[in-house]
Amino acid sequence: MVLVLNEPESPHALKAKADCATRGCRAYDLATSRGTVSAVLGLGSVDLERMAGESTSLSVVTPKSPYILAGRAIKDTDTVVTIRERAQIGGGPLAVIAGPCSIESEAQIMETAERVRAAGAAILRGGAFKPRTSPYAFQGMGLEGLRLLRRAGDAVGLPIITEVLDADDIGPVAELADIIQIGARNCQNFSLLRKIGRVGRPVLLKRGMMVTIEEFLMSAEYLLSEGNMNVILCERGIRTFETETRNTLDISAVPILKAKTHLPVIVDPSHAAGTWTLIRPLALAAVAAGADGLMIEVHSSPETALCDGGQSLRPYRFDELMSALAPLAGAMGRAIAGSA
Amino acid sequence: MVLVLNEPESPHALKAKADCATRGCRAYDLATSRGTVSAVLGLGSVDLERMAGESTSLSVVTPKSPYILAGRAIKDTDTVVTIRERAQIGGGPLAVIAGPCSIESEAQIMETAERVRAAGAAILRGGAFKPRTSPYAFQGMGLEGLRLLRRAGDAVGLPIITEVLDADDIGPVAELADIIQIGARNCQNFSLLRKIGRVGRPVLLKRGMMVTIEEFLMSAEYLLSEGNMNVILCERGIRTFETETRNTLDISAVPILKAKTHLPVIVDPSHAAGTWTLIRPLALAAVAAGADGLMIEVHSSPETALCDGGQSLRPYRFDELMSALAPLAGAMGRAIAGSA
Amino acid sequence: MVLVLNEPESPHALKAKADCATRGCRAYDLATSRGTVSAVLGLGSVDLERMAGESTSLSVVTPKSPYILAGRAIKDTDTVVTIRERAQIGGGPLAVIAGPCSIESEAQIMETAERVRAAGAAILRGGAFKPRTSPYAFQGMGLEGLRLLRRAGDAVGLPIITEVLDADDIGPVAELADIIQIGARNCQNFSLLRKIGRVGRPVLLKRGMMVTIEEFLMSAEYLLSEGNMNVILCERGIRTFETETRNTLDISAVPILKAKTHLPVIVDPSHAAGTWTLIRPLALAAVAAGADGLMIEVHSSPETALCDGGQSLRPYRFDELMSALAPLAGAMGRAIAGSA
Amino acid sequence: MVLVLNEPESPHALKAKADCATRGCRAYDLATSRGTVSAVLGLGSVDLERMAGESTSLSVVTPKSPYILAGRAIKDTDTVVTIRERAQIGGGPLAVIAGPCSIESEAQIMETAERVRAAGAAILRGGAFKPRTSPYAFQGMGLEGLRLLRRAGDAVGLPIITEVLDADDIGPVAELADIIQIGARNCQNFSLLRKIGRVGRPVLLKRGMMVTIEEFLMSAEYLLSEGNMNVILCERGIRTFETETRNTLDISAVPILKAKTHLPVIVDPSHAAGTWTLIRPLALAAVAAGADGLMIEVHSSPETALCDGGQSLRPYRFDELMSALAPLAGAMGRAIAGSA
Repeated sequence: MVLVLNEPESPHALKAKADCATRGCRAYDLATSRGTVSAVLGLGSVDLERMAGESTSLSVVTPKSPYILAGRAIKDTDTVVTIRERAQIGGGPLAVIAGPCSIESEAQIMETAERVRAAGAAILRGGAFKPRTSPYAFQGMGLEGLRLLRRAGDAVGLPIITEVLDADDIGPVAELADIIQIGARNCQNFSLLRKIGRVGRPVLLKRGMMVTIEEFLMSAEYLLSEGNMNVILCERGIRTFETETRNTLDISAVPILKAKTHLPVIVDPSHAAGTWTLIRPLALAAVAAGADGLMIEVHSSPETALCDGGQSLRPYRFDELMSALAPLAGAMGRAIAGSA
Repeated sequence: MVLVLNEPESPHALKAKADCATRGCRAYDLATSRGTVSAVLGLGSVDLERMAGESTSLSVVTPKSPYILAGRAIKDTDTVVTIRERAQIGGGPLAVIAGPCSIESEAQIMETAERVRAAGAAILRGGAFKPRTSPYAFQGMGLEGLRLLRRAGDAVGLPIITEVLDADDIGPVAELADIIQIGARNCQNFSLLRKIGRVGRPVLLKRGMMVTIEEFLMSAEYLLSEGNMNVILCERGIRTFETETRNTLDISAVPILKAKTHLPVIVDPSHAAGTWTLIRPLALAAVAAGADGLMIEVHSSPETALCDGGQSLRPYRFDELMSALAPLAGAMGRAIAGSA
Repeated sequence: MVLVLNEPESPHALKAKADCATRGCRAYDLATSRGTVSAVLGLGSVDLERMAGESTSLSVVTPKSPYILAGRAIKDTDTVVTIRERAQIGGGPLAVIAGPCSIESEAQIMETAERVRAAGAAILRGGAFKPRTSPYAFQGMGLEGLRLLRRAGDAVGLPIITEVLDADDIGPVAELADIIQIGARNCQNFSLLRKIGRVGRPVLLKRGMMVTIEEFLMSAEYLLSEGNMNVILCERGIRTFETETRNTLDISAVPILKAKTHLPVIVDPSHAAGTWTLIRPLALAAVAAGADGLMIEVHSSPETALCDGGQSLRPYRFDELMSALAPLAGAMGRAIAGSA
Repeated sequence: MVLVLNEPESPHALKAKADCATRGCRAYDLATSRGTVSAVLGLGSVDLERMAGESTSLSVVTPKSPYILAGRAIKDTDTVVTIRERAQIGGGPLAVIAGPCSIESEAQIMETAERVRAAGAAILRGGAFKPRTSPYAFQGMGLEGLRLLRRAGDAVGLPIITEVLDADDIGPVAELADIIQIGARNCQNFSLLRKIGRVGRPVLLKRGMMVTIEEFLMSAEYLLSEGNMNVILCERGIRTFETETRNTLDISAVPILKAKTHLPVIVDPSHAAGTWTLIRPLALAAVAAGADGLMIEVHSSPETALCDGGQSLRPYRFDELMSALAPLAGAMGRAIAGSA
């Protein structure tokens, strides 16, 4: 059960909040269609019904789902995540994140940044710390790569996103990147989720290959329950028996997530498919299914890429994709979000 | 290896065909961008290279895939399946098949036929023989139901499709129905495939819940190799660990199949999702991914349906779906196929 | 709800049966720890509670599972399937079925029959009708092969089992074979299940690759509800993301099935693994998990086999397996069933 | 390619090692049937063939698998992991790890420790840091719990194992626990793997729910490549479509892993099944399939357990399991390992 303070600044609410704090509980401010409300969790031993009876500004909600902050039971309006006041994800326009799987050199990331910016991407991606199945594979350029990404983003005026693998890197990444990405393999790395939840940076959480939709929302709840409300969910394919694709894009997850959560939902067709030829149809399908954005791997020279070249679009193919997206987004009543 | 007769009516080709026939081989006429050619299969012991050397009108093709007639190695143009000269599937316009999971009464099927016709469906569906997990569940109205479906289709001017479960029913179904449907559970019922392949009726083959894309094409090959070239493929979801949906719609299968085969590919979002709320986003996604058509369950009173009510759209929801499809199909450069 | 006639020969029971018959219902005789009882199904519209109140020899049972005859709610004792009074499956001793994937020649099947008999197999297997993914692959020797299998079985004194793919072959197969096998791809071919259920021959039903344990029991129910109570269940692997094995042997299915049904449960490690090196550890595991028997592919010359050679044991490997099974079966309190 | 120094103390080998070190490479000492050898990895740019030609004590090996230290190409003998000279895993005797899912109180862990010790367990398990899907669920007693586990282990003379979730806890856990467990959800947390690989404590690595066998071995390779050779692998079920069990125990993984790696392989039937009734048959199956040990959840009062009570055995059931294991292990030529 959750105690909802409908007028958070009212004397009753302020008193309730103070009471909660002394009991070790926590209140979360949520923007709803009725204005901002405060949701107080963890008041297990308190007689919430009695408290709620004391004032009409208090109410008790019992969400049916195990995720409380991520669900729509209390927060009924879509969350729009604003990135440095230059881009936003959620709330209507379609946000396209694009860039290489891994940052390999200044020239590579700079060229890619310019190309994806020109084509209409809103955010630049690039991997500095790479989760690789093999300890002997290229593990990314690390902080040096991240600095190159920052510079490229600044040069073309795009916010940047990069993945964190190790809690020790959260500090520098939060300082340099505009969005922190949590990869599929860390989707249930609860320790990392908690620590990133405490940081004041938007987070993009990828669904694990084996993670159910409900578990995915519970992983988001870890982030939200630590106070970080700017969470973007990313469907990127699940594991099935089919071997034609690297993973099976669970397109149904898009409308299901949109119905269950107020958080924005985007799709990564590159990792789902594992081959560039499928990116375009899957990207179009994702938008038609209601996704708020896309994450696309773009590499100027896929055949020499140090990582995942086969699932990267060449820049001119990315241009074509963006051209194909525009009318489809239009038919869905959406514009493609540019960067401010 | 396949011997291709590029000018099937030339003396060389006619002689080659006659030779093949005496050897127990079979020649298949295929419409290609170069005109109709004949493909001769099963000439294992014949020196094809030598034969091909005899005339420029003969050539030898070695398809990389185990499916030969279903692949694009010889037949490079899309197959358009024409249904009684009143409807077509493949070749551009989007064909929507709609109707109830099972035929329950004359009133029910007649009302549904009128509604889906009015909304723009091209073909009427209805189950007369139902594959049910339980022997104690409603098994369909059988031939009596099929006759009602025929009457309803004729009344509104729509071709009809129904599923065959038992080889004994192929005769009457082929007589009454315009398309024979093979259900997911019979996708690898090779005996049924062979027998239906010998019938001169278009066939809609559903992908099995655990059938790989390659195996799916091999099942189609069973139909084609018996001489029935009018085969429509239908993706309807595969089994995965995710339990939010009845099956997981493998949206990637659409572009993969379109690349590998010339046969038309449609999507059944009702069975994939198992819940009507997901039909619309999945139907839109299917069209965006390149599907040639859709198969949608529509029932005027889902709450009293004898089968799969929860995954059926009410008629007014189907109207809404068709309205939403039009601009999306337009953005994809497709019209919605009406019935002639 | 099921009406159980606890004393089937009592006047009350005889009258109840006659009443049921006039209502189109059917009574099934089941051997239980309380003696034979009759279970009457399908009395939907009858006031069963009132009927049961009329006599202490009548009772009403409401099974929790959707399978009624296959479950343990009414029939609480294990079913033992007796094969021509020469072998039995279920009830304690471990029954080993062995032989080649497909019958290829008289010499091949005769040699194999002698070898597996000598090693202690109780039943000889051999495929005459083969379900092949490709229409161009070897489809089995058909009836001619089945006659060779019959002759080989008779020569060495072993009952034989073979698969039926097509309902048209049920008659001759039932005449020649001692057990009719239904393959994994036909596990939900409800039409075939019904027809085989009407034949008075023991049936071995393989679990489909995509079939849940509950669905598997519902397929068995199709057979039982037609009156054939001699059904043996066979776990042979399900489809998962893992690619090291052809399928993933669901070893848990053995104890789960044994708890839910009175039917005997055997395991086919050859098809589960897809490679002969895994047969031995999986066979041992199956016995340790409580399986009533095993089905093992044995071929005298796997490298020249027309089908599935890679997953067949050479005869001397089969000897080794049988030697390894004996002490393990002993530790589980079971003997290896010989053939009478 | 790997350079193998067959006589690590020879002048040639010492020189080669010194050369490697200056190139940033690393040499690993491996116990083989030919004595200890050194394997030098990462000499990409060096002309290994030429180096090997210089001395008969040097050779070049090209493993077929992407895992090098975990494979059998160089190290051909089974690894035996010795735990504080009191227990060992691998090398013949069967090691049983038992204890509660989570440590809940001193009384609980002490009572359980005594019971599992008396029944013949070799190692005591207990969770102090629990990976929970929900941030609001009981997260374990933390270090305080670990100290209770340590005390209980010391009291009954059993080594202890506990899971680490957060790299920050590696230090204290390595100090207090005898084996560090890496849970299924962290199987591909490469950052955690690297850090634990640098610690001189045996490690038990659980297979992720959607991790292939090859990926599992690559995760082990992360640990080995950091210098920690005392790694135990644990199969605990994978995700499939089947819902009767929490996960599907991949019993085939046991013989496959044993063939591919020299590391010991154990099985956790509790997490695989998710219900205590299946623990016994799955434990027996695991031993029959060749597992080197088992990990079993035991709780004195499952109905009040704070975590996973339903999949825990009561102590008397654990006694029964150990009694059933003895003859089966005997039939497999194995003893049950006691604690020294």
